[in-house]
Amino acid sequence: VVIVGVGLIGGSIGQAVRALGLAERVVGMGRDRERLGEAQRLGAIDEATTDPARAFESAEVAVICTPVDRIVEDARSAVRLGPEGMLVTDAGSTKRKIVEALEADDDARLKFVGAHPIAGSERSGAPHARADLFAGRACVITSTTRTAEDRLARCRAFWGALGCRLVEMSPDAHDRALALSSHLPHVVSSALAATIPLKALPLAAGAYRDATRVAAADAGLWSAIFRVNREPVVSAIEEFQSHLVELKQAILADDDQAIRALWESGKRRRAHFEET
Amino acid sequence: VVIVGVGLIGGSIGQAVRALGLAERVVGMGRDRERLGEAQRLGAIDEATTDPARAFESAEVAVICTPVDRIVEDARSAVRLGPEGMLVTDAGSTKRKIVEALEADDDARLKFVGAHPIAGSERSGAPHARADLFAGRACVITSTTRTAEDRLARCRAFWGALGCRLVEMSPDAHDRALALSSHLPHVVSSALAATIPLKALPLAAGAYRDATRVAAADAGLWSAIFRVNREPVVSAIEEFQSHLVELKQAILADDDQAIRALWESGKRRRAHFEET
Repeated sequence: VVIVGVGLIGGSIGQAVRALGLAERVVGMGRDRERLGEAQRLGAIDEATTDPARAFESAEVAVICTPVDRIVEDARSAVRLGPEGMLVTDAGSTKRKIVEALEADDDARLKFVGAHPIAGSERSGAPHARADLFAGRACVITSTTRTAEDRLARCRAFWGALGCRLVEMSPDAHDRALALSSHLPHVVSSALAATIPLKALPLAAGAYRDATRVAAADAGLWSAIFRVNREPVVSAIEEFQSHLVELKQAILADDDQAIRALWESGKRRRAHFEET
Repeated sequence: VVIVGVGLIGGSIGQAVRALGLAERVVGMGRDRERLGEAQRLGAIDEATTDPARAFESAEVAVICTPVDRIVEDARSAVRLGPEGMLVTDAGSTKRKIVEALEADDDARLKFVGAHPIAGSERSGAPHARADLFAGRACVITSTTRTAEDRLARCRAFWGALGCRLVEMSPDAHDRALALSSHLPHVVSSALAATIPLKALPLAAGAYRDATRVAAADAGLWSAIFRVNREPVVSAIEEFQSHLVELKQAILADDDQAIRALWESGKRRRAHFEET
């Protein structure tokens, strides 16, 4: 198994694959020798290389765990340099553009199956990696009519072996759902953190802390996700803006019944999340 | 010590006062016999009554822990029925209207000192009360030039004994700061929970969970806070809306630099919170 990008997700995959004995050897591939060395010291990979030819030449599975704006390029490199029988999958938070780009190319189409294990965190880097990061977490597999059946079966087996609960949907449906369930909460969290002035922070407590937690995530990673998934993210923001305006209008109108009704509708949906 | 309203805050005050031996007797006063009985069984109060005359006749301290739209009335009842030397304080999340109403009345002005221990939760009710709820938490004391000096000193001593870190500011400054640090995160959390459709919830994870946690709080409690603190809350929402629009425009413009700059500004403020 070759892991491209040994951050939180890539490092956790390496730890899980090694802990579960799912591969003979886990090779970490990247551009930064220091980060690779750290991942190796932390037990996330057996060996490290910055040379794609060496990394992919005998790979059975390549998992691309780089930021979403680099996945297509890294997957193409794996496809070009790896053996015929290899599976290439990824862990990107957006899917439509990645899958479209790779399926447009016949070599890549035959080896690639898109995936997204939903297990991020505001923390990044191999030091936060954990072998059980994927246990019980959803992993969306976004096969299309053009995906090779045998690689799809191997892709399901790979993510399933890491403990993921598999969910299958189209790349497009994935991107629209994730824009709402993950990208929007990140946008809102960041805008909220930017709004609250330093002088109010000594009076902030749990509501602030939790609502802004993911605003501490990596800027480059999230800028790439918002840009690659632009249209669904902007639609989700607009949907949110209209709910926010409704609640603001109810407060302005001093309308207890309307405020309570809007509040209850959010509370009911939230309760549904806790139950599932 | 008489506690009016034995929910999460009132129940926790009772447990703390009893655990620390700060009073000879803790009396719970309320309208609902069942809730009072429960608070007594849970050890939050020594005795319970629904009769204000009996509750206040020999009270040294009365702490009003009812929803913000009932505090003025309940504090007036304590002032009217209690002895000359009593201290009346409260735990309300808004201060200007409460303090103004009580200071307009000379009897109340001489006994009342407004306070707000910042220690709420999305949970409510005595079953979630804890004696250490206030340990290390900020408690804002909102005295004015009209507050009686001796009661102010006793109010500081009371909240300090519960483990609170005391912060003093005007009722107005309190309301503007809390609109940003607490009421706004609640508004945003609720609107976010209302936006995300049920079908996207199986793909929601940590970002959703934390950003919407307080949307599970009590509707009536929060409707009252938003209405009593309307102007500062609406200003805070508008401030947030302009940060959100900026981020949306940067995403629409596919402007990596602008997205990163806005993200970093939220991240820096958030880091400041973690450091303090």
